[in-house]
Amino acid sequence: MHFQSIAFLCCLSITATSLRGADPLPSWNDTATKRSIVAFVNKVTTDGTPDWLPPSERIAVFDNDGALWPENPIPFQLAFAIDSLPDKMAVQPELAEDPFVQAALAGDLKTLLADHYKGLFRLLSITHSGITTEEFASQVDRWIRTAKHPRYGIPYDQCTYLPMRELLEFLRSKGFKTFIVSGGGVDFMRVWTERVYGIPPENVVGSYGGYTFELRDGKPILVKTLSNVFVDDKEGKPVGIQQCIGRRPVLAFGNSDGDKAMLEYTTINNPRPSLGLILHHTDSDREYAYDAQPKSSGKLVEALADAGKRGWVIVDMKNDWNRVIEITP
Amino acid sequence: MHFQSIAFLCCLSITATSLRGADPLPSWNDTATKRSIVAFVNKVTTDGTPDWLPPSERIAVFDNDGALWPENPIPFQLAFAIDSLPDKMAVQPELAEDPFVQAALAGDLKTLLADHYKGLFRLLSITHSGITTEEFASQVDRWIRTAKHPRYGIPYDQCTYLPMRELLEFLRSKGFKTFIVSGGGVDFMRVWTERVYGIPPENVVGSYGGYTFELRDGKPILVKTLSNVFVDDKEGKPVGIQQCIGRRPVLAFGNSDGDKAMLEYTTINNPRPSLGLILHHTDSDREYAYDAQPKSSGKLVEALADAGKRGWVIVDMKNDWNRVIEITP
Repeated sequence: MHFQSIAFLCCLSITATSLRGADPLPSWNDTATKRSIVAFVNKVTTDGTPDWLPPSERIAVFDNDGALWPENPIPFQLAFAIDSLPDKMAVQPELAEDPFVQAALAGDLKTLLADHYKGLFRLLSITHSGITTEEFASQVDRWIRTAKHPRYGIPYDQCTYLPMRELLEFLRSKGFKTFIVSGGGVDFMRVWTERVYGIPPENVVGSYGGYTFELRDGKPILVKTLSNVFVDDKEGKPVGIQQCIGRRPVLAFGNSDGDKAMLEYTTINNPRPSLGLILHHTDSDREYAYDAQPKSSGKLVEALADAGKRGWVIVDMKNDWNRVIEITP
Repeated sequence: MHFQSIAFLCCLSITATSLRGADPLPSWNDTATKRSIVAFVNKVTTDGTPDWLPPSERIAVFDNDGALWPENPIPFQLAFAIDSLPDKMAVQPELAEDPFVQAALAGDLKTLLADHYKGLFRLLSITHSGITTEEFASQVDRWIRTAKHPRYGIPYDQCTYLPMRELLEFLRSKGFKTFIVSGGGVDFMRVWTERVYGIPPENVVGSYGGYTFELRDGKPILVKTLSNVFVDDKEGKPVGIQQCIGRRPVLAFGNSDGDKAMLEYTTINNPRPSLGLILHHTDSDREYAYDAQPKSSGKLVEALADAGKRGWVIVDMKNDWNRVIEITP
């Protein structure tokens, strides 16, 4: 009891010191945006106030593409799929004749996305199925550490937004559980999210295609399939949250119309205090500027139109962030 | 830094004191079973040894029905479904003519399970779909606190195995993340698992039927459907683990052939140290005794036969536990 009391007091002191001592969000300018985030977090984590949330209820969900890292010039997972093709073609030379493979190698997104994403599914069936989860993870790990982003010239896993990494860390320091809820493939993200964002695999919700379990040569494996595709986007996001998290978030951070349903689910009629945030890509100098007409994915029209009436906070990249993409020290 | 060092030393002292001071598993007899569990946990959590696992890798998965609470005389969720019928029939009187409803009310399991569980699915479609997740949760919450188990005469949420609650707590005190991976419905379990087992909703993996998201009267809701049924049993368990946890467990605890694939996935060819455990129901005086011929679910033949060659530890309820079902203080 004696030891416990001392430890408890020490912990209190440390927390108080670190909060007074340093700005937890140094890459955010001192604007109304930053102040609204900090105010919300303080409001729900200050014990003894009506808005206080028990730590178990502090669920924060983040989109990934366009919210934690860019989705330009094409989503990074699509770049991975295209970069994976030559290895596949070395084993299956007939793939060279496939019009969708040709479109992918030529960077012809229009053909891939036409006819209800038919080409994209073909690309996924070549690169994301018929492979064990372990083999796939090792391919992703190798790619993400070595392939370079065409504009920034650094590995993709270094192309994350520093202000967002700070926000994730700030929330966790205040007892929040941080989750990714992304249209990206869950097996693609989990390989590196813990190392890059501090978000462990079990806190990553994403799209998947199904799996079969078997003992192959006496060893248990899971083979990726496209037999039971779940797309964690748009109305799929609240569904993914229900499937894997099982309660409503109190903070949601997105950047496109694909995040609108998740923002609605988080903030409308929530009995708990809640905050919705939308990253607006306004910075063509340091990143990209787009909303209604993105180069590939990330269209932002409906969610932006609703932001006012929903009380969602618009994060203006150009004005609210003093740093954007910074190599992890 | 000064405060931090003191706090760190205090924490070390508290941990050392509590571990020396009290048996974390008092309801377990001092048998080889208990010793093998404690030895495994100590082995993988003792820093500086070759078997040490970083906390992020300490994933422990537990079946629920028959592993954390009984599945006799019928699985508790089935009892919930049957008890829900009168309220449904009050609104839809024509249900009284449904042969599967009649079978359920008569306790005729054979009819419900025949023809690939056709009657069970009918029962689920009446009681587990076309309802919002919030309404469903509130029905489950009311039932689990008030309906009484026919043998023990106490609410179902009190019918859990004390030795297993101790084990969950012991594992968490050693930095493990505890998960449920059950054939039971995920929406049924998450309502009470945090209160009863200390396992939060996001750590519960189970079966589900699909959801649709909509704004109804301007408010976001998820409606339960049976449009995308996932059965988290047998080979579905490793799949559920991959979908929601995303890495291989190092400890798996089951009690039936439905857990065999999960035990295989956890213990065979795992590069990390691992432990598989099977609860054998051997105690007709305090609980139930069955394996090859259970009264309803929970058949245990193949997993029991494989235990020797796989090194899975058999927990013998009668001999290894000095207490079984105890009302939570």
